[in-house]
Amino acid sequence: MTRFPVPSLDDLPEDVVDRIEEETERAGFTPNVFLAYAYRPSHFRAFFRYYDALVEDTELTREEIEMIVVAVSGANDCYYCNVAHGALLRLYGDDPLLADQLVANYRTADVSDRHRAMLDLAVKLTESPAAVEAADLERLAAHGFSRQAIWDVGAVAAFFNLSNRMAQLADMRPNEEFHSLGR
Amino acid sequence: MTRFPVPSLDDLPEDVVDRIEEETERAGFTPNVFLAYAYRPSHFRAFFRYYDALVEDTELTREEIEMIVVAVSGANDCYYCNVAHGALLRLYGDDPLLADQLVANYRTADVSDRHRAMLDLAVKLTESPAAVEAADLERLAAHGFSRQAIWDVGAVAAFFNLSNRMAQLADMRPNEEFHSLGR
Amino acid sequence: MTRFPVPSLDDLPEDVVDRIEEETERAGFTPNVFLAYAYRPSHFRAFFRYYDALVEDTELTREEIEMIVVAVSGANDCYYCNVAHGALLRLYGDDPLLADQLVANYRTADVSDRHRAMLDLAVKLTESPAAVEAADLERLAAHGFSRQAIWDVGAVAAFFNLSNRMAQLADMRPNEEFHSLGR
Amino acid sequence: MTRFPVPSLDDLPEDVVDRIEEETERAGFTPNVFLAYAYRPSHFRAFFRYYDALVEDTELTREEIEMIVVAVSGANDCYYCNVAHGALLRLYGDDPLLADQLVANYRTADVSDRHRAMLDLAVKLTESPAAVEAADLERLAAHGFSRQAIWDVGAVAAFFNLSNRMAQLADMRPNEEFHSLGR
Amino acid sequence: MTRFPVPSLDDLPEDVVDRIEEETERAGFTPNVFLAYAYRPSHFRAFFRYYDALVEDTELTREEIEMIVVAVSGANDCYYCNVAHGALLRLYGDDPLLADQLVANYRTADVSDRHRAMLDLAVKLTESPAAVEAADLERLAAHGFSRQAIWDVGAVAAFFNLSNRMAQLADMRPNEEFHSLGR
Amino acid sequence: MTRFPVPSLDDLPEDVVDRIEEETERAGFTPNVFLAYAYRPSHFRAFFRYYDALVEDTELTREEIEMIVVAVSGANDCYYCNVAHGALLRLYGDDPLLADQLVANYRTADVSDRHRAMLDLAVKLTESPAAVEAADLERLAAHGFSRQAIWDVGAVAAFFNLSNRMAQLADMRPNEEFHSLGR
Repeated sequence: MTRFPVPSLDDLPEDVVDRIEEETERAGFTPNVFLAYAYRPSHFRAFFRYYDALVEDTELTREEIEMIVVAVSGANDCYYCNVAHGALLRLYGDDPLLADQLVANYRTADVSDRHRAMLDLAVKLTESPAAVEAADLERLAAHGFSRQAIWDVGAVAAFFNLSNRMAQLADMRPNEEFHSLGR
Repeated sequence: MTRFPVPSLDDLPEDVVDRIEEETERAGFTPNVFLAYAYRPSHFRAFFRYYDALVEDTELTREEIEMIVVAVSGANDCYYCNVAHGALLRLYGDDPLLADQLVANYRTADVSDRHRAMLDLAVKLTESPAAVEAADLERLAAHGFSRQAIWDVGAVAAFFNLSNRMAQLADMRPNEEFHSLGR
Repeated sequence: MTRFPVPSLDDLPEDVVDRIEEETERAGFTPNVFLAYAYRPSHFRAFFRYYDALVEDTELTREEIEMIVVAVSGANDCYYCNVAHGALLRLYGDDPLLADQLVANYRTADVSDRHRAMLDLAVKLTESPAAVEAADLERLAAHGFSRQAIWDVGAVAAFFNLSNRMAQLADMRPNEEFHSLGR
Repeated sequence: MTRFPVPSLDDLPEDVVDRIEEETERAGFTPNVFLAYAYRPSHFRAFFRYYDALVEDTELTREEIEMIVVAVSGANDCYYCNVAHGALLRLYGDDPLLADQLVANYRTADVSDRHRAMLDLAVKLTESPAAVEAADLERLAAHGFSRQAIWDVGAVAAFFNLSNRMAQLADMRPNEEFHSLGR
Repeated sequence: MTRFPVPSLDDLPEDVVDRIEEETERAGFTPNVFLAYAYRPSHFRAFFRYYDALVEDTELTREEIEMIVVAVSGANDCYYCNVAHGALLRLYGDDPLLADQLVANYRTADVSDRHRAMLDLAVKLTESPAAVEAADLERLAAHGFSRQAIWDVGAVAAFFNLSNRMAQLADMRPNEEFHSLGR
Repeated sequence: MTRFPVPSLDDLPEDVVDRIEEETERAGFTPNVFLAYAYRPSHFRAFFRYYDALVEDTELTREEIEMIVVAVSGANDCYYCNVAHGALLRLYGDDPLLADQLVANYRTADVSDRHRAMLDLAVKLTESPAAVEAADLERLAAHGFSRQAIWDVGAVAAFFNLSNRMAQLADMRPNEEFHSLGR
């Protein structure tokens, strides 16, 4: 990250350091988004709290969440999220190809009709939010998504419309490890 | 809000109820975004924590924040945020006209060159995030924004790219009161 | 208006002065578009003659006309017309909210299916005129619009594609009164 | 014209018939726009009054006006205006090639820097009206256009944003004669 | 062509000269694309070999091919191809009007439903290639196009997405003769 | 490839089979584009002849060519070319990260100013070809590109505007091997 300083761990509040250390242990390296966001600890806390809510409190599978993230990030041309969440999708989905498909063009992805409907909503909410209407949500209901799951599909898409913009603003660079993880 | 159920206060966790009551007391009515988000308490907590961080922990004035919010929401064609934050801008900025200018077209707004630069970044990050480059940030530095303030301008814009999409997804409707507040 | 001089009434032809005085009497103030257009009296005459034909010689109600005007002006991001015709819509439609809905995003407006079809044609003709085809007109016929009313829906939309551009060219500023009229 | 009936001359008011006969005598055939607009005589009068003001009361040469018309109509993909005003440009400009250049892409046209600036404003006002700012007008002033001429450049462009939309709405078809006139 | 030098025939390889002479004999003048491409003989050979394959080895009629070319070139705003292939379409289609219709807006062209489907695919592949899906191809099958003809419709469109860009890059100018041929 | 049949080698002309066998030997597998294009042998020959001219007869390095290809394919959202040419760029450029950067957003790529200028032209010619003007080419000259190299930059970009469209039309799928080659 070149546009904002990356703080040293010594200068950070304990809860932020704790989270960074947890993530580092889990991944084997520190994903750069944690260092980038640590520039603003109050934002760090809110951002990851939101992220945690999205992935922990939902009927969506983690694979479905990462599919939405990568499709949205591909539509927004976000290098950091394409690569970091592409890796997560390869791992959670146990699929080495799907992330590259979604980065390019979610319409070319090998997904079920149900997941295609899910991605149609996520990408429409990304590219032409003002055109989203009730019928767009009902298509997901017809594929068996619960009301709450429909909210969550939209919420993941909306959150990554925030994330993609912060990554672009700050010029976040994905760790080299992410480029090949899960291939 | 017609696309997701609005929970009754009795069914909500205490901290969510507390926040809703505080807001109701402050405004004299309950802004609908609080009822809409209460559908998902874990999201409610994260969303408003982020919002609080943006408005409480920053060098930007509250008027500047609301200028960014309305310009971004106007660009995204968001009815809820245009109207609710238009009201906040009239109140915080003590200006009955600026919100209507920003809703229409931020280029027609009567603002200083410094604020024009601020809004140029916020709207570019909204409309063509992938085209934001270092030079876009440096223009703000030339107008005296600190590094942290530049992050915050981008962060407010990014957050309302999330909010605008949630409002559109859920078809949030601004309270009638907001339409005339501060005129 | 800052980009073209506003003539003094003394320098204007009598018919132009007469019209300005009539409008001033009707509104209680002189709507700025009359002063702006007076810069070119031959254009003034033609512009308001067209406008008069649109509002006086038609089956469309005045409320319907102002709905089209505000939806088109919102799509074109026109500050003057959003605000001045937003006020007219509040008055003619006896509705304090509809204008703010149409300014933001006509898809969020509380309107009948018949009016939604009317606005769909008006906004499509605004945003992608080359894609308008016979089927777009027939949808209005199916909602009971006569052939002549369909022409008029298109004509109001087309005329405000002219007006919005003149307002932007000349940087016309709506009178302060319009911002709160009818709220 | 297939979407609205073309009235018979016998059913039209005298002033409308007179104008149609004048035009027919001048051109040697009746340009279809006159028959199309005769469907709504009150609109006919206003439309051609505006047109007359634009071409008769201006410092712009008729060639310059037709250059603007064809560049705008090309940008709006309008078959009727491309062809009918393409013919007028060939005649008034005594240039068999310029119209085909402007229909395709005004940036490829063999025009002076002065006329390039004129067309830049006309096309910007057509394609992204909300982005037109004072600097766009000042570029024309720097090329020697008077204040009034700048208004007129914008007014011609704005008027054909109306005309192009009416032609598309009504599916106006240019007379066969226009396709080869002046080649 | 002003952006790259046009080589003299004496400096060109024999096969390139032969082709240029053949074309000159056929047309009565040397179409400028042959002189422009002669700047890079290896590209010349490949470009015209591809072109020959498209027009000689196909079930599509030459008129159909030129319809696709003009619709694609109109969508891409290509002056050279609009004019040169407009002339070819007038000649092969024995129709003096169709080219001007397709240059403006293929939706206004007087074509059969079968040819409308053909042009819909060609223009969609031009304007939003990533949105082309199986159903777009199947519409052509429903109109009786063979599998191979569907490939060829797409191939002609794709090839002119190359040609239009080379013409724009090199600022190729159509010969004056093309503007009036076949009118 | 699911939209067109893939011919068996036994049914193909000898020169096409020879080329396929060469490529298979070189890569260790048969890149699917060769099988896809074999559906139309006359197109196969022309397509690869053009490709060979672009990579063999040029001052551009192979790394530069693949940079252009991946930036253009990323802009066009082409799954096949992103992945297959991403692999070639990793190999020719000896860089495991650059392809993922260019697929996402060429503005985030770690490239020299010279290469940034090269990619600016290639992507502008892809996304808004009608806006390319002489000044766009002169920027490359200022960075030391010869006239012929400028043509070649444009020609590679133009050719992949053809390729990306054929890949999308035919739904070409990159071989699994390409996804991880050179990482």
